Amino acid sequence: MFSGAQVSLYPMTDDFVGVILGAIGALEPYRSTFRIETDDISTLLVGPPDQLFPAMRDLFVSAAGQGVHCVLAATVSRGCPGEPDDPICTPVNDSHYGQPLAEGITAAIEQVGAAPQTGQIVAAQFSLYPLGSGHHMDEIYGCIEFLKNSGVFDRSKNFCTKLRGDAGAVFATLSEAFLRFGAPQGHVALDLKVSANSPTAI
Amino acid sequence: MFSGAQVSLYPMTDDFVGVILGAIGALEPYRSTFRIETDDISTLLVGPPDQLFPAMRDLFVSAAGQGVHCVLAATVSRGCPGEPDDPICTPVNDSHYGQPLAEGITAAIEQVGAAPQTGQIVAAQFSLYPLGSGHHMDEIYGCIEFLKNSGVFDRSKNFCTKLRGDAGAVFATLSEAFLRFGAPQGHVALDLKVSANSPTAI
Repeated sequence: MFSGAQVSLYPMTDDFVGVILGAIGALEPYRSTFRIETDDISTLLVGPPDQLFPAMRDLFVSAAGQGVHCVLAATVSRGCPGEPDDPICTPVNDSHYGQPLAEGITAAIEQVGAAPQTGQIVAAQFSLYPLGSGHHMDEIYGCIEFLKNSGVFDRSKNFCTKLRGDAGAVFATLSEAFLRFGAPQGHVALDLKVSANSPTAI
Repeated sequence: MFSGAQVSLYPMTDDFVGVILGAIGALEPYRSTFRIETDDISTLLVGPPDQLFPAMRDLFVSAAGQGVHCVLAATVSRGCPGEPDDPICTPVNDSHYGQPLAEGITAAIEQVGAAPQTGQIVAAQFSLYPLGSGHHMDEIYGCIEFLKNSGVFDRSKNFCTKLRGDAGAVFATLSEAFLRFGAPQGHVALDLKVSANSPTAI
């Protein structure tokens, strides 16, 4: 199953190039796992679906740790039918998806509880799109139940859901929502913004 | 049909607050048309679907005109089934959507040709998601044919399409893709980034 993301980092500072270059080293441990390509708009990551959110977390925590207001925006996708079935997109961890919904919700909450603490508080906003056929509304409602019990649920907004908390738990919650709900081999896209150090955070 | 967007503006400068406050006045002509709500992540616009991209264009051109590298990111939606049918979401212009596909493509190209020139060159990257049932693949292929003939098509990338050109033509192309293709009353979401003044534009 093809999986990857188009990722952009926006540091709100005159030295945005320096902040980006300072943060990009956080992707080093992932370079052997992912195909990575950059242009003037975004960086493409193609690789194991269960490593996408850890890689984005490490990149963002590294940038936010430099103290400036910054945002990560990403378009994340799995199972896109027009894309080749790339062997580098094999999950690193055996994930047991496709289990009964109640067990999936419990397992997702456990994964978030076990997420590493980063010490970086973030706000995140995302929209999850199950595309094509084969997705059951039960799965979507199950995902919502999981989000509300994730410990980082902030609120529902028009067109999206907002999370707030430690970057470890927030990115783990996003990863679980992306991977565990909807058809295991179905096409799912996720539109994400994560913000840190905002002067207007409420 | 409920329609709107969650819009964020990211100026890559120490004075990001000043750039945002300096640009927000560009939304004044739209304040009577839209419901507008802001928090620390994004600004919600709810209103006529055919005014969403002109409003975002004016906001972004105003910010980019201040000379700094900046990005607008937006999650745009129409026909979301969970949202109320809001009377403020009535199109301002009578739009004749739902016409035969070949006529729709011709009309879309004409609209882009008639778009105002802003003098601001931008690069845009977007993903269009027809959600739920009722969308025909013919419509999607028709949209792709339109994009390739829009005059601002740059290239297809993994998970998204890239445009480049004057902000007037680029935002008009996005608006046509969003409104004219897929089921007229169907649920469509669009994930958008627009960039100007990038030091690495290629």
